[in-house]
Amino acid sequence: MDERAALGRLDETLPAAGDDAAVVDGLVLTTDMLHESTDFPDGTTRYTAGWRAVGASLSDVAAMGAEAVAAVAVYGAPEFDWDEIAAFVDGAADVCELVDGAYVGGDLDGHGEFTVATTVLGRTDAPVLRSGASPGEAVCVTGALGRTGAALRHFQTGDTERGNDLFRFEPRVAAGQVLADHATAMMDSSDGLARSLHQLADASDCGFAVETPLPIDDAVDAVAADEAEQRELGVFLGEDFELVCTLPETALEPVRERLDVPLTHIGTVTESGVTLDGDALPDRGYTHG
Amino acid sequence: MDERAALGRLDETLPAAGDDAAVVDGLVLTTDMLHESTDFPDGTTRYTAGWRAVGASLSDVAAMGAEAVAAVAVYGAPEFDWDEIAAFVDGAADVCELVDGAYVGGDLDGHGEFTVATTVLGRTDAPVLRSGASPGEAVCVTGALGRTGAALRHFQTGDTERGNDLFRFEPRVAAGQVLADHATAMMDSSDGLARSLHQLADASDCGFAVETPLPIDDAVDAVAADEAEQRELGVFLGEDFELVCTLPETALEPVRERLDVPLTHIGTVTESGVTLDGDALPDRGYTHG
Repeated sequence: MDERAALGRLDETLPAAGDDAAVVDGLVLTTDMLHESTDFPDGTTRYTAGWRAVGASLSDVAAMGAEAVAAVAVYGAPEFDWDEIAAFVDGAADVCELVDGAYVGGDLDGHGEFTVATTVLGRTDAPVLRSGASPGEAVCVTGALGRTGAALRHFQTGDTERGNDLFRFEPRVAAGQVLADHATAMMDSSDGLARSLHQLADASDCGFAVETPLPIDDAVDAVAADEAEQRELGVFLGEDFELVCTLPETALEPVRERLDVPLTHIGTVTESGVTLDGDALPDRGYTHG
Repeated sequence: MDERAALGRLDETLPAAGDDAAVVDGLVLTTDMLHESTDFPDGTTRYTAGWRAVGASLSDVAAMGAEAVAAVAVYGAPEFDWDEIAAFVDGAADVCELVDGAYVGGDLDGHGEFTVATTVLGRTDAPVLRSGASPGEAVCVTGALGRTGAALRHFQTGDTERGNDLFRFEPRVAAGQVLADHATAMMDSSDGLARSLHQLADASDCGFAVETPLPIDDAVDAVAADEAEQRELGVFLGEDFELVCTLPETALEPVRERLDVPLTHIGTVTESGVTLDGDALPDRGYTHG
């Protein structure tokens, strides 16, 4: 059974678990595990790893429209080098500070492979689920897509400084709270825009008609050889941690006035099917290792 | 740097992290990572693994005197066998139900070694820290020590059914909440009684004079060849998840009347030094892998 199929069964078994974060008593709780072979390319600093691992869980809290309360992490590694641990903690603490959360600690684990488990606790009285989109609404995305795809190219070519820069993203916690006032459905783009749209469509029992141009990060232009590669990095690769949401068209302008990130109107909620410029958009993307 | 030294540095860096769980806004948050090579002997079922991994984090919440609100876990494994995942979830859910908490989900991670990261969220307005013990108070322990030591022997000899039974412990969440009304310091015995006493002594700047007989589980008698081995399994090996706490002697009887587990008065808080029957008790125990 592949991870996606197993996750589907898991969501059926634990109904609270099927969204970006579990909801309980006005709180949201989300946990992730990242590890070296699939999530941290050669050259990823421990500072970047701490930032990105905790940031990934902060992004799940953002996708619920919640404020970030506290984060913890377990740092698993074959050996405990204090400078590396301190750098990891600095990265974790800095990304928390950026979104007004607190990094409050965690644990160490002697582990064969560098492995990080992160958990973030958030708070909201009105979580935005994936299931509330209705035909006729606008579908939007924050920021720009493709940062991670571009970062991976830089790691591959040895420009690890640029790779690390691009890997440290800003979780959209503040934007998520603004969007929560109007969004009918929301999730993050951690599996790629294409997968996110399909997951929103499944949860909301709707479809999406999306049109180019999509907001693709300038960093993608710098590494993509052609339009096909640009689309691959921006639409399918994912791990970008932008917010994908639906909201009434009338809410677009008032929301944009309150947001400090761009919000691009990429299409419309339809009855069924997910299309890009009229062609079916394949349901594929980054499958987490 | 070994794990213990690194943890010490980590606690200095993140003051909120130095207790069994981090405290934030009336909530407590704790996270752990367990993995096959160090925590789940051959023959450990996935049901037991789910129970025990989530139980270990519930025990940290118990040690703060908090109620258990919600638990999440990441299940990392080389392949996703649905029967194994379902058994793990059942074990996790059952241990949560036993302590009136809710298992609300988590994530999957393709991982070279079977690895579990668990997080439990608790709630209390008055967390019991490790730092409040004063000379003259009683030091006590819930339940009986040595279950895990006995379990490991059974796994070694191939009696995995008995090993699994002993591995599934009851987290002392209810007892922790009762003890919280009177306890001046508390932690769990997950590193062994000896290490726990030394950690409480460090945090409270005190000592302990502990006397035999200690409450050793009957399961230890069945596997220990002699008294020395009994003591090794009961006092040093740890991973038992009982609560070790200090409280005024006058509180002992009123507390016992409200507890549904035995509370053994094992000694007295002193000015300095940790002794067992008058001899220095070495500061050693189970170092988590």
